Amino acid sequence: MRIGELSRRTGVPVPTIKYYLREGLLPAGELTSPNQASYGDAHERRLRLVRALLEVGGLSVAAIGEVLAAVDEGDGPVHDLLGAAATRLVPEYGGGGAVSDGDGDGDASAGGSAGGGAADAETVLARERVARLIEERGWRIASGNKAAEALVAALASLRRVGHGGFVELLDDYAEAAERVGRIDLDYVARRVAREDLVESVVVGTVLGDAVFAALRRMAQVDASARTFGKEASDV
Amino acid sequence: MRIGELSRRTGVPVPTIKYYLREGLLPAGELTSPNQASYGDAHERRLRLVRALLEVGGLSVAAIGEVLAAVDEGDGPVHDLLGAAATRLVPEYGGGGAVSDGDGDGDASAGGSAGGGAADAETVLARERVARLIEERGWRIASGNKAAEALVAALASLRRVGHGGFVELLDDYAEAAERVGRIDLDYVARRVAREDLVESVVVGTVLGDAVFAALRRMAQVDASARTFGKEASDV
Repeated sequence: MRIGELSRRTGVPVPTIKYYLREGLLPAGELTSPNQASYGDAHERRLRLVRALLEVGGLSVAAIGEVLAAVDEGDGPVHDLLGAAATRLVPEYGGGGAVSDGDGDGDASAGGSAGGGAADAETVLARERVARLIEERGWRIASGNKAAEALVAALASLRRVGHGGFVELLDDYAEAAERVGRIDLDYVARRVAREDLVESVVVGTVLGDAVFAALRRMAQVDASARTFGKEASDV
Repeated sequence: MRIGELSRRTGVPVPTIKYYLREGLLPAGELTSPNQASYGDAHERRLRLVRALLEVGGLSVAAIGEVLAAVDEGDGPVHDLLGAAATRLVPEYGGGGAVSDGDGDGDASAGGSAGGGAADAETVLARERVARLIEERGWRIASGNKAAEALVAALASLRRVGHGGFVELLDDYAEAAERVGRIDLDYVARRVAREDLVESVVVGTVLGDAVFAALRRMAQVDASARTFGKEASDV
């Protein structure tokens, strides 16, 4: 199909599709004449994936490029492949994109770490807690794992804002996460084709976060209605 | 304390603190002379909260302003207060900030919805599925709830990218989310002071998402190691 048809089918404007082509998020079409290219079902599918990662996953174009590279590599042991994909989906904390997006004041130092000298003590405590969690649950993950580092950053931040008590909930959270992680893997393991498998990890991880976050808020509203004795909720 | 001391204690540069003051994320200090203000422990605590929401929560300055407004309102029934805070923490999908951050090409149409005509059918299906979920679980939430709408958007997006099978996992996810939602509420209900209570919801919801997402990835790596038979993982 031509680019106009691809646009019509997916609802993505032609200039946006051209931008994705330039950025390498979509492979080039097959040239049918010097200035006309043809696109197939694979392009349509990839385009929908890019939009989902942008709109629901909230990933940046750069992050999507990295994730798609992992999808397209497709060699090496399955476990390493899954690990590579999952690792690229861990948000970067502290001075990362989210901070510079928000500050918007041209203040170059705004992306630095908060907490100054105090940060070290909180991080040390958080790191010990995460190491203990991994050991107690018998999780087979390396100590420098990026997701584990993200957890350390989140726990240290909780302590820094005076909500260290939240850390008590870690075991219960881990229990629920373990259940969800097994569900995810069961789903992924049913996929046969390898490209399909890594794509499933990407979709399941990114959109799964959005699904779980929404469900958690819904469950909170329900629990609040029950705890504070309201018959029907308006929120 | 003076602004320099506030900066030293929190590790946040003075220009950044001034920016937060201008944006209303921090209340003004008490004027001790025409061009000197004094700040207290409440400022320090609020500043750490702002940094945590920025760095770990990934919220924009505008979103933080809205959330803090909910924290500071502090009247009305507890359930409504919690609902107001939680609702402002639901990410906006489709054409929201995350999309425009990523596209960066000055392409005004890039924020539009993907899927075009097909979107309606997927959204209708997703909405039916979410309504059934709420009914089956007996969740006391309104049908137009923002978290429920976010879930509809995520499920519709999953179908659109050819991963509608993921929707089969919804009940298992909901089971885990219900458990986490109850844990969250138990934690929050232990807080006595009302301002403290809403702040706990904000911190717990935003940082709790980060904690859970990290734990889920760790559990995935562990499940992958077990499923694909690797002894020790390097990822």
